[in-house]
Parts: sequence; C-alpha cells; structure tokens
Amino acid sequence: MDSVRLDPSDNVVTATRALAADAEVEGIATAGLVPSGHKVATMAIAQGEAVRKYAQVIGYASQDIAAGDHVHTHNTEFRNTEADYEFSTDLRPVAMVPEDQRDTFMGYRRENGSVGTRNYIAIVTSVNCSATAARMIADYFTPDIMAQYPNVDGVAAFVHGTGCGMAGDGDGFEALQRVMWGYARHPNHAGVLMVGLGCEMNQIDWLLDAWGLKQGPLFQAMNIQNVAGLRRTVELGIEKVAAMLPLANEAERTPCPASELKVALQCGGSDAWSGITANPALGYACDLLVAQGGTGVLAETPEIYGAEHLLTRRAVDRAVGDKLIGLISWWQDYTTRNRGSMDNNPSPGNKKGGLTTILEKSLGAAAKGGTTPLTGVYKYAETVTAHGFTFMDSPGYDPASVTGQIAGGCNLVCFTTGRGSAFGSKPSPTIKVATNSEMAARMSEDMDVDAGTILSGGVSVAQKGRELYEMFLAVASGEASKSEAQGLGDYEFVPWQIGAVM
Amino acid sequence: MDSVRLDPSDNVVTATRALAADAEVEGIATAGLVPSGHKVATMAIAQGEAVRKYAQVIGYASQDIAAGDHVHTHNTEFRNTEADYEFSTDLRPVAMVPEDQRDTFMGYRRENGSVGTRNYIAIVTSVNCSATAARMIADYFTPDIMAQYPNVDGVAAFVHGTGCGMAGDGDGFEALQRVMWGYARHPNHAGVLMVGLGCEMNQIDWLLDAWGLKQGPLFQAMNIQNVAGLRRTVELGIEKVAAMLPLANEAERTPCPASELKVALQCGGSDAWSGITANPALGYACDLLVAQGGTGVLAETPEIYGAEHLLTRRAVDRAVGDKLIGLISWWQDYTTRNRGSMDNNPSPGNKKGGLTTILEKSLGAAAKGGTTPLTGVYKYAETVTAHGFTFMDSPGYDPASVTGQIAGGCNLVCFTTGRGSAFGSKPSPTIKVATNSEMAARMSEDMDVDAGTILSGGVSVAQKGRELYEMFLAVASGEASKSEAQGLGDYEFVPWQIGAVM
Ligand SMILES: [Ca+2]
Ligand SMILES: [Ca+2]
Ligand SMILES: [Ca+2]
Ligand SMILES: [Ca+2]
Ligand SMILES: [Ca+2]
Repeated sequence: MDSVRLDPSDNVVTATRALAADAEVEGIATAGLVPSGHKVATMAIAQGEAVRKYAQVIGYASQDIAAGDHVHTHNTEFRNTEADYEFSTDLRPVAMVPEDQRDTFMGYRRENGSVGTRNYIAIVTSVNCSATAARMIADYFTPDIMAQYPNVDGVAAFVHGTGCGMAGDGDGFEALQRVMWGYARHPNHAGVLMVGLGCEMNQIDWLLDAWGLKQGPLFQAMNIQNVAGLRRTVELGIEKVAAMLPLANEAERTPCPASELKVALQCGGSDAWSGITANPALGYACDLLVAQGGTGVLAETPEIYGAEHLLTRRAVDRAVGDKLIGLISWWQDYTTRNRGSMDNNPSPGNKKGGLTTILEKSLGAAAKGGTTPLTGVYKYAETVTAHGFTFMDSPGYDPASVTGQIAGGCNLVCFTTGRGSAFGSKPSPTIKVATNSEMAARMSEDMDVDAGTILSGGVSVAQKGRELYEMFLAVASGEASKSEAQGLGDYEFVPWQIGAVM
Repeated sequence: MDSVRLDPSDNVVTATRALAADAEVEGIATAGLVPSGHKVATMAIAQGEAVRKYAQVIGYASQDIAAGDHVHTHNTEFRNTEADYEFSTDLRPVAMVPEDQRDTFMGYRRENGSVGTRNYIAIVTSVNCSATAARMIADYFTPDIMAQYPNVDGVAAFVHGTGCGMAGDGDGFEALQRVMWGYARHPNHAGVLMVGLGCEMNQIDWLLDAWGLKQGPLFQAMNIQNVAGLRRTVELGIEKVAAMLPLANEAERTPCPASELKVALQCGGSDAWSGITANPALGYACDLLVAQGGTGVLAETPEIYGAEHLLTRRAVDRAVGDKLIGLISWWQDYTTRNRGSMDNNPSPGNKKGGLTTILEKSLGAAAKGGTTPLTGVYKYAETVTAHGFTFMDSPGYDPASVTGQIAGGCNLVCFTTGRGSAFGSKPSPTIKVATNSEMAARMSEDMDVDAGTILSGGVSVAQKGRELYEMFLAVASGEASKSEAQGLGDYEFVPWQIGAVM
C-alpha cells in the first residue's frame, strides 16, 4: 500500500512512501512528487473548500486542487475557528456490547469495588526528604523474600523531587495532594505505607484528614522526625511492609468485566507516522473498550491544543465541554506567565514530515481517543469516575502525564512512540506501540506492538486496534508487557510540578 | 547559661530557657517573664533607637525599653530600608593565614587543577526517560565488584524528573544545562557517563557543543534511541563504566591546601535556635575557611530576603552587590508570576519562637555566611570561581539548593537543621549540624554535630565553629559523615525546575 486513508469521508490520503509523478493512489495518478508522509488529494477540491482528514476539516484549499495533487502548505490554509465552540454536535452513538456478552479479564477485585490489574505494596513519599528512606525500605524486599508472596507483584517506592519549598495552597499544592491520594488509593495497591520527613509543606497528616484516609493493617503512615532518624524509619518501615505482605498475598485474580479497565492513552517521542498508524489504532482500541463499558483517558492538554473545539462537539453535555475550554484558558495563562507559549503550530520538521496545519497535528494526537462521545473532563490526577472516552488535564511530558493518569485510577497504560521510548510505569503496566516498523525492529526488546505494519504489511487500523484491545485484556490479566518484564517503573513517578520552587 | 549574646555590640541577648521575672541575665534582672528563645534588653533603648542583634539593626524601639525588658513586637517596630542599598560600606578585613602556614586536607588533585574530596564515577542523565537505564547501570556495580577498586567511592546515578516538556531556552533550560555541566565536570568525579533518550529537549549533544566537552576514556555519552533500546543501553553503559574503573582507581589522595575547599552552606527544617546556635557556628567556621583562602557558598535567596541590603554592604564591589539586587528582583517577579509571594515575614510560629522582624529572621539564615566580605554572586549551578564568602541563587528547598551548590563546584556540604533532617548528598558529602541538643540526641544517628551545646553546655559559638572547621578538613580527607556512612545521596539530586512543564 502506497497510501493510508484515515476515514471514508476524507478527500486526502497519506503517502506511506515517497511517490513519483504518475504513481497510482486509490486509482488516481499523482500529479507530481509526493514525499513520504505527505497528503494526496483523492478528488478535486475547489478553492475555499475544506480539506478533510480524520473525518475533520484540517484546512481550506487556498487554490483549486485537482485529484492526484500534493496537498500541503502551498495550496492549503488554516482558518482559526477557536471562538466557534459547539457543544455535543458530533455525538456518534456507541454500539454498546450487552452486559452479559462483555469480555472479561482476570483482575483483583478490592473491598471498595474497584479492580486492580496488579497487586503491589506501595511506599508513597510526601517529599524528597524521605526518598532514601522509602527506597531503602523497598530495597529490603529482595526477590528471595518476595518469592514467599507469589501473589504480590512487588514493593514499589514512589519517590519524587518536590513536596516542600512550595506554596501550601493553589494549583501546585492541590495537584500534588491529588497525586498522593490517587496512589494511596490505587486499586493496583494491596497495601500502602506513606513516609514523610515531618516538617514538609506537603503534610501527610493534612492529606489523611482532607481525604478521610484511615490507618489500618494495609494503610500506614509515618514521619522520619517522629520515628527519630533514618535507620529507625527504615527498620520500622520494613516491619510495617513485612506485616502487610501476608495480607496482600491473599488477594486473588477473579474474572472481571472489561468495563473495569481504565486505560491511559499516551504518546511520547512522536514522529510523522504517529497520527497515521499507532494513534488511530489506539483510538480504535479505545472505541472497542468504550463499547465494553470501559474507560479511555486521553491527556496531554498542550498536544490537543487547536483541536479542542472538535472535542467539545463530542462532549456529552455543555458542562463537560466547558471544563475542557477552561483547561485551555488555564494553559494559555500558565504558559504566558512562565514566558512560554502554547504554540503548537507545525514546526519546520513537522512540515517536512507532511503536517500542514495545527489542526492536523493536534488531530493526530487526539486520534488516540477514538470517536466516541467525551464523557468526562478531569483535573490532573483527579479520580476518573466516568466510563467511556474521557480527558484529563496534564502536560505532554510523558512521566508527568502518566503519573497523573495513574493517580486518576488508570490500571493500564498504552503508549505510542515514533522516535522510540524506554518508558515503563508502576503500579500500572505500560504497553508500548511503535508507529513505524523500522524503529519497532531496532527497539524490538522495548516495543510490544508494531503499528508500522499499517503502512507496510497490509494491516488495517481496525485490525491493529483489535490486536491492541486484546493485549489490554491479556496484560490486565497479568501477562507482562515488555517494559514491565524489564523492570521499568521505579523511577518514572514524576508529579507535575506547577508553580514556583521556593 | 540562660542567654546567648551574638555580638559584643548587641543591645539584646536571647534567652536560652524561659525566664521568670527577676532572673539574672548578664548581671541585669529581667523585668518580667521572657519565653525561651526571646530577647532581653541588656541596656536601656530609648524610643526610636535601634535594636541590635547579630551586630545589625533588626528594628527600632517603638517605646522606651529598659534594661531587663522583654524585647519583641510589643515594643519593637520594623522600618523598611530596602531602597537604601549601600555598597562595600561594611568590609571587615580578613586576617588571612599566610600561604605557608595553611591547613591541608587529603584530596584528589585532578588534571585541570581542581581538587576533589571524593572519587566517584557518575552517570548523569539528561531526562527522566533515561532514569531507569542509569540506575540499572549503577546497580550493576555491587560492593563485591567495587571491592576491586578501593580508591573509587562508588558509581552514582544522577537521575531526575525533568529534561523534556520544557522550553528549549530561558531560565529553566539554562539552569538545567548548568547543573548537567557542573556534575559532568565536578572534581569529585573521576569519570562521567552521560545517558539520554535521544529526542528530549535537553539534548546531550547541545551540551557537549555549548560547553566544549570532549569524549574520552573518562567521559562518555550515549542515547537510548541510538543504542537501540534499554537492555543494550544498560549493557553498553556497564562496559563503559567498567572501562573507567581501573583508571579512576589510579587516583590517590595527596595533601591539598584548605583553600581548595568549597563548602555549601545550607539549612533546612529550621527552628527558633537555628539563628542562635548552628548558623552562627557555621558562620564562624566559614570565616576560618575564608582566612585559609577557601570558599563558602551561601544560597537560598528567599531566606535572605529582607537582609540583602546588609549583604550588599559586604560586597567587595558594586558589581557584586548589583548582582545580588538583580537576584532579588528576579525572585519578586518569579514568585508574583507564579502567584506566590516572597513574604518572609515572621510567621505566627516564628513570632512565638521569639523572632520579631523579617530582618531578624533573614539574619538568622545569613549567619551561616559569617562576617567576611562577599566576593562573588552566582547564578544557580554556575561555577563558583571566587574564593572567600560567596552567594549562589537558589530556592530554599534543600535538595534543589544543594544540587545547585554542588553543580557550582562545592566539594563539601554543611547543613544545619532544627527540626531534624535525613538529607545526604553525592558526590560531595553532607555534614549535618543540630541546632538543639534534644533533637541531636533523638536523631543521634543522623547528626554529625550538636550545636545545641552553645545553649546548654557552656560552649561558645567560636568553639563550635572551630569544631565544624576541623570536621570540614577530616571529612574532606575521606572520613565519612553520618549521612554518607548511611548511604544517602542517590535520591537527593533535584535540579531546580523553573518554568512551565508542557
Ligand atoms: Ca506526546
Ligand atoms: Ca506524552
Ligand atoms: Ca571503596
Ligand atoms: Ca533553610
Ligand atoms: Ca534549605
């Protein structure tokens, strides 16, 4: 196949290799050279008419375009539509799978009804000042010791660089407290030990009070200053975790409906193929999951910037759409205050790769979210309660974004990458999807799925999407993803740090 | 002793325990109750006259104060003097020790002339995406393997949460690059391996170009994407470090003058005694070091806020003083932009502890810097080239501040704490000083020095300062500080993150 069509209604397709003049694309002869990754018109587009890709308007013909013409910045222009927000005007009905026919996976059903895909004991830190203590506690539990607890996936320390030298209220503080609460309550955690220093801004006691967390056999908290030093803290922490292990080991996997899956949709190190192969395939998998009553969580607000008006049209109601617009305004202010910019316009490199407008670029990122209605919009690290396709505010930066998604309750992560990534996460495992076969082969020990076969192997987006969805069920049931088997996830916990470090 | 005098010219002393009326303080009877940590007038201070502590004006009598009176907010007012900057008007001559009589320590003299106090191999990461790779490389070098290289202190991985999802220029980017450069070139590192992902904003190649770093047997760089995946990167990294170890092991300690010591002056978890005991003692040690031609590096700009005009009077010239004022302006803007505040006024808790004005509070922090002229002011993580007492811009937050000081070349850290801290650092060891004997006893396994004996044990600030200075020489020569012996320092590398995470 020399081209990829992303929707039947599109009037352009994307060349999967450099095409000479008179090459055939969907039965039409190309009018001239078309570089790999660039677009070809499959019908005439008169000046002023819309150019459509992803079933969306990505721009307007700035001159008459003939079938077979190369479509790019020389004949396509962007028109800013950002003020024209519409709500719920593009709600495509979802053919829900009847409850009694739904797929299942083998999960850990917790007392509060939530479902885990893994069974960890977590050591959650409030501040960098307790980082070494937490690592030393976790390091004590060697593979030899853990062999006695075959149902426990490990003792994981969640250590970070913030928690003090920050304002004690406002966006940054609230985001950090949501992250801590989210990890403290994550369904992939059988037991949790919180470790602080004692005098930090991000007080564990405040968190317990504010969120109504109560200590018990599987939830404990302590501070180095109260316990009186590092060595005693490490010893006491080891005792506390050791007491949790037999209890945690009692957990067993049972069949749980796919509706209990919350999948973090993520991309990092994107390339020109991300929006053509891996992201649409992940979007298809998300659609399948949503039809099962499950949840997909798109994030990375700066990367959907410019396409937010398309997501508001998919919002189930005005309130959900307004939340998304609120996030966009917040980000404009945040980046301006920090002397950055939300400018997501295609870079020279993007343009060289075939991306013509900001809309096309953002649609490529948003493609991970499929086509179903947007059922909820959440703050960073906020608990995702809606089922269906949802959005969570976060930076694009991979570890910070995934940390928020996991804190929000995601029990699985699916991560597309073009340049290649060695990302992995705990307590929820990451499945990595390559956008191109060259990188998939080169980094074969890191990539779970090669979506590059959509370009070269005659595999459809739907087929690849189904493969991904099946992998969700397998990995959720305990099969190790490649990053998980490699032991990644101990150093990728990065709460989004907003605001001044003081 | 029931009181502490911080300077012969002061007209107040600080009560070291709660004093009843008619208690004797320097031969004067107290007029009423004086809480522990609060001030007592040792002579009459007429309304409008200056109240002096630390040989500085900390406020003005708002009514007539008699000898023996409790001096606090009820009879003392603050007058804002911030516009009245003077330069070089308080330059106290330093009695320099002649070069042939200077103290020495046993250090590692490097080829470029710099002197290390430790001999590590460092794995420096450009981005969180290479964090696990770096840790896995370092973890390979177990104590068994390292036993073959007795002159090498360890293989340390410097891993962090930033490096991408950030602007590629501006304050934040420049600060991160300075940190990387500072660790790459640190005299405590015999060899350095830099590990990146490949597509991150904080490109290793740019750094090597910009700073003129050349690869060689003891300086290597690599990216996961080029090496093709995590496992191969870890294997190659292990090979590269293994090749460095025999070379690094050739380094030997030789006598080096104390003028080669650069000591990071730091405090964290301060209490009401910090400014009375540990900080003045550290200031005295800094004065001794400066007389030897050595360097003290004060930092934590928000904590000296309100006392910067006293530091400009100590500036060796106008340019040095102007740099400090520039930092203060930058911070006012930074915190305002981030909806925080530079307000360092005594909190209700501070006031309860006896601190009356912002000046008194900031002087307590600045006391770590002693009394000698301010010879240089540096950006965060900038190489400190001046000898003498210097200042580096940084947040107060301990790990971020110390990371900047070490990047600036500090080969030793001295850290005062009142509440108690379990901080430690690599590659430069941290000496911890307790401000009070109660905490020193409670956290005895973490505290190297108890400065609380200034209150209770009849020890003078000068005696405690000399004890600290002697410890500088011992620890610089290889004696392990307590935090070092405990193995701290692998998780406390926290580059200051300035600007939006995108
Ligand atoms: Ca992305
Ligand atoms: Ca990302
Ligand atoms: Ca050794
Ligand atoms: Ca401090
Ligand atoms: Ca500090």
